[in-house]
Formats: sequence, C-alpha cells, structure tokens
Amino acid sequence: MDLSEFELIGQIADRAPAAARFETGIGDDAAVIHAGGRIVTSVDTAVAGVHFNAGRPPSESARKAVASAISDLAAMGLGAGETELLVALGVPAGTSRAYLDGLVDGLLEAAGEFGAALAGGDVVSSPVVFLSITAIAHVTDTTRLTRRNSARPGDVVAVTGPVGGAAAGLALLGGLEVPDLSDLAEDLLVRCQVRPEPQLKAAPVLAAGGVSAMIDVSDGLIADLGHIAEASGVGMRLEASGIPVYAGVSEVAAAAGSDPFEFAVTGGEDYVLALTVEPDLFARVDDALIEATGFELQAIGEVVAAGSATGGVSVQSDGRILEFGVAGHDHLR
Amino acid sequence: MDLSEFELIGQIADRAPAAARFETGIGDDAAVIHAGGRIVTSVDTAVAGVHFNAGRPPSESARKAVASAISDLAAMGLGAGETELLVALGVPAGTSRAYLDGLVDGLLEAAGEFGAALAGGDVVSSPVVFLSITAIAHVTDTTRLTRRNSARPGDVVAVTGPVGGAAAGLALLGGLEVPDLSDLAEDLLVRCQVRPEPQLKAAPVLAAGGVSAMIDVSDGLIADLGHIAEASGVGMRLEASGIPVYAGVSEVAAAAGSDPFEFAVTGGEDYVLALTVEPDLFARVDDALIEATGFELQAIGEVVAAGSATGGVSVQSDGRILEFGVAGHDHLR
Repeated sequence: MDLSEFELIGQIADRAPAAARFETGIGDDAAVIHAGGRIVTSVDTAVAGVHFNAGRPPSESARKAVASAISDLAAMGLGAGETELLVALGVPAGTSRAYLDGLVDGLLEAAGEFGAALAGGDVVSSPVVFLSITAIAHVTDTTRLTRRNSARPGDVVAVTGPVGGAAAGLALLGGLEVPDLSDLAEDLLVRCQVRPEPQLKAAPVLAAGGVSAMIDVSDGLIADLGHIAEASGVGMRLEASGIPVYAGVSEVAAAAGSDPFEFAVTGGEDYVLALTVEPDLFARVDDALIEATGFELQAIGEVVAAGSATGGVSVQSDGRILEFGVAGHDHLR
Repeated sequence: MDLSEFELIGQIADRAPAAARFETGIGDDAAVIHAGGRIVTSVDTAVAGVHFNAGRPPSESARKAVASAISDLAAMGLGAGETELLVALGVPAGTSRAYLDGLVDGLLEAAGEFGAALAGGDVVSSPVVFLSITAIAHVTDTTRLTRRNSARPGDVVAVTGPVGGAAAGLALLGGLEVPDLSDLAEDLLVRCQVRPEPQLKAAPVLAAGGVSAMIDVSDGLIADLGHIAEASGVGMRLEASGIPVYAGVSEVAAAAGSDPFEFAVTGGEDYVLALTVEPDLFARVDDALIEATGFELQAIGEVVAAGSATGGVSVQSDGRILEFGVAGHDHLR
C-alpha cells in the first residue's frame, strides 16, 4: 500500500491528542499512564465480514468498533471520562491509503465523541481487516460499578431503550426488500446497525441510582440477560408485551420470514443497557434517567429464583411461555 | 465447532487464576483492577500465516503471542510483576476443540511463565486465527522506565544477546535445506522462532542501572535502533564485527542466498533488548546484567549527532559503510 506501517502509526500519533494523565503516549514500546484507585478495562474486536461490512465507509467501521468497546464500560456503569484506547489494527497488504485514512478518521472521531484518548496500538498485516479495541477507564475507589453477578429475586428487569433495530438494519443492508417501510424508518434502522450509541449518559446515572446488575445488549437481549442470570444464579421472567421494539423491526422481520418478537430479542448489537433494580428503587432511578437523558426506563419483567423459570430467562406472551434455546448469538456457532 | 464461544470463555475463566489486585476478573463486561501509581500498557497482535504458522501447535502460537506482548513491557524496563493480560481471540467457525484447547493452554502457560494474570478478553469469529494481547503492568511512581526518546550522542549502543536466530528458524521451518548445519543448531534456531524469551530478568536491571534508551528487537535490530534514533533525534554508528549473531545464522543465510550480516540485523523477532547507555555507566550496567542473568552486554556502536550518520543508523564493516534502505520489517509492505 502507499502508506507504510510506520507512516500510519506516525500519522495517528500526530493527530491523537494526549491526555494530561499520559506520561508516555503513542510511540514507545508501551504507554505510561498515571493511575490512582482502580482501572476498568475491556477488549472488543470487530472483524470485516463478521461485525462490519468491508464495503461500508472505513471511518464508520472504526467508529463502530470503538463504540462497541466503550459500551462495555457503560455496562459497568461508567460515562465518558478518563478512558484510554489501545487499538490493534489488522489490514491486508495493499489496502488503499484512503481506506487506512478512513479507519484513522473513525478512530479519532470516536475517541473524541466518547471522551477517550488514544494511548497506543499495533498495526499488523492480516488477510482480513480487523480492529481490536482495548478500553481502560480510571475510576476512584468509591465509584459504584454495575456488575453481572448481583441481580436478586424480586428485582425488576428493565432496559433503557428499544431492541431489534441493529439486526433489522443489518438485514436491510443485506438487500432485504421490505414493503411499506418508509425511507425514514429504513434510514433509522440502518443507523442502529452502523452507528451504535453507547449509553454513556445513562450508565453513571443508573449505577449511582443503585441498579443491582447491568449489561449492554450486544449478543441479543435474551442472551445478555442470560449472562446476568447465570452470573447471579437467578432466573428471569419477562413479559413480551413490555419489551420495547424499535419502529419498523416487525416489518423487517416479517419480510425476512422471522418471528418479529424473536428477531428483536435475539438480534444483538443494540447497545442499550439491560439491568435489574430493586422495586423500591425503580421510580427514583427512572426519574434520574429521564432527567439525564430524556428517556424512560422500560420495565420488562422480574428476577426469580433459579430453577423457577425455564432455563435462565423465559418470556410470557398472552399467558404462553416462549422458550429460547441457546440464548442469542454465539460467535463460534 | 464443538465448543461454543461461551463454553470457551467459561473454560478460560475456570482455569485462569485471579490476582489479589482483581476486584472483578474474567466474566463481566470489563475487569476492575486496583491500581496505584502508574500503568504501563501495550498491545501486540499475532495473525496466523503472518506471525505464526497455523500448522504449528496452537499452544506454542498462543505462548508466542503473549511473549511478544510481554517483551514490549521488558523494553520499558519491566520484569515479571503485577501484569494483566486481555486477550482478543479471532477463530474461524469450525475450529476444532483441540485447537481451541491448545490456544487456551498456551495463553495460560505464558501467563504463568511471565507472572501475568488473565483479566479478560473477547472471542470472535474470524476467517483467520489471530490473537491480540493487551498487557497492563502496574508500577510505582518511582519505577525507572526506559523509553525510546532519550538516547544521547556519545552513548554506547548495546544488545543483550545475539540476533538473526528467529529469522533463520523461520527459514528452516519453511523447508530451507542447509548443508552442514547440525541437528542441534537447527533445533536451537527453530526454538528462537517459535519460543521467544522476553528479557524479563535483564530489563529491570538495565533500567535500574541507568540505560538511557531501550527497545526490544521485534522488527529487526537496525529497524528497532532506528526507532530509538528517530525518537531521540540522534544517529547511530554500529560496528558490524561487534554485533553478535546467533550460531548457524550465517549458514542459513548463505543457503537462502542472502547476505549473512544483513539477514541477521534485519530479520526481527529476536526479542533481545537493544539499548543505549552513557560510557561511564557501561561497566556497572554490564556487571549487574551478568550477575542477574549470566550474560554480558555486547557493545555494538555509538550514538552520534543526527545527520552525521547515513540516515539514522549506519554500520561500518572493514572501513566500508553499509547502508540499509527502509529500516527492517514493515508489516504493511
């Protein structure tokens, strides 16, 4: 390609602003960062053809990879703050300069958008484009974090927004024809897929408000609630009619020959937050969320003792129990 | 494949010991780790067919990926210590359970060998196997770190061991026939390639002894010294006869039709440390290194003012100046 590995790294180093806490940022063997208290760290990887379409603009793909990594921090209850990103970038030899520039643009755009600082990375040759994003957030010893293992029977199960949009957008990008779907609805669904919004405003409000467990919806609502149920040793009973579904998803699912409800709750990549909260705290948390984001918390069910539900998570619909097999999306199957 | 994404993650979580500093390790959206002082962090990625051969044992490939990431910390002057690893693992759907188990074995073996703790990761589907390893080390505010940007004219340039072995091992693995090379020499060269040893004993001794700049030899000796030269705004003059070359490399290079010296200094993946040190400190640092590791520091040249050498790094051989073009291995070219 017409940009060398070191030129690409140099370009990133020149354009990425350093944070005050950086003692050494990009350009040495490792980054050196002042840390006090605790770090919260996670890695998330996006592979072309699996997590994003190589034909989409590279800046959009890079931004999405960062958004997905940042969403894991939101799931822990963190907002935009003192966060570093380390980026491992795999690109085929022969990748055009325009594509590489686009990836860098998207990384820097996302870092700026999410209040994060690029601290380092690695560029390697690979037969397929991939981005592996490590996010490291700094929090104090007293920052309240929301884990998966602390849901308790009796808690309300809730979500911060509708699901199914990203999966519907993916189907539309794949060329699915959907009669009676407006251009606006189509654009919004595609946007759910290509430009996810990590819930950085909602997350710290929910954590401070005392939610008992939280996760971001990346594998699919049922699968991700299943992760909470498993880690907490509990079950969940959801009410199908209470689960908010993104506008237009039912039409897309019908056109795809899928059950609209199943399509919405197993699709994944919604990046809304799913959580559990004691009933007594629900109203207070809901008020705080509305004040911070303008959006309501949507109650969708309750936490029950382990074994009392079918598998970990069951859904009631008109008195019937809908069962789901392997919960949600397994990247290896 | 016969192991699901979540089963694989569960198996890793069950087998990876948690460190005392972990508040939350594997199994949540992110890891939470007590940190005081500073963190030193880097990411390194290995792609099958590029950095390791998919036909080699997976445990060996995984260990090598971790070794390469840990070597970046050694280059900063760190030994085995309080280090976390985050592992992004890309594997094709249909990968055998034996291969996955081997990757996990290698990750855990390497973590144990290098005193690191697995704190999290991500398993994704990918058309090619890759491992992207983020290493996070905890150091105090007073730990001396060795950067690239602080070499000064007059400093001695030195290495902690011989170069060229890994490149020769790669050629041998590729099936190159080398007459007159003993089985033992061949085994040792292949071992350089498949089982690199990050210099964790040497690194903190060198840092504490006051070396002015340091890097690990991953791209190739000339290229990596070039990174120090560029970051420090200096040049370097090396003496070819002083550069230690691994036993058998010359024979392999000759059989490959390459210049033996150029083969050794551009091959890469040696993971010895290359450094600069004030002449007055050399003997003291050398003594400390011998005491800690049994190996001598090898002086190979001197740091000169920028512009006085050809490019950043030049090599004298019998009075001639050897010039190298683009320094070493560029992953994208």
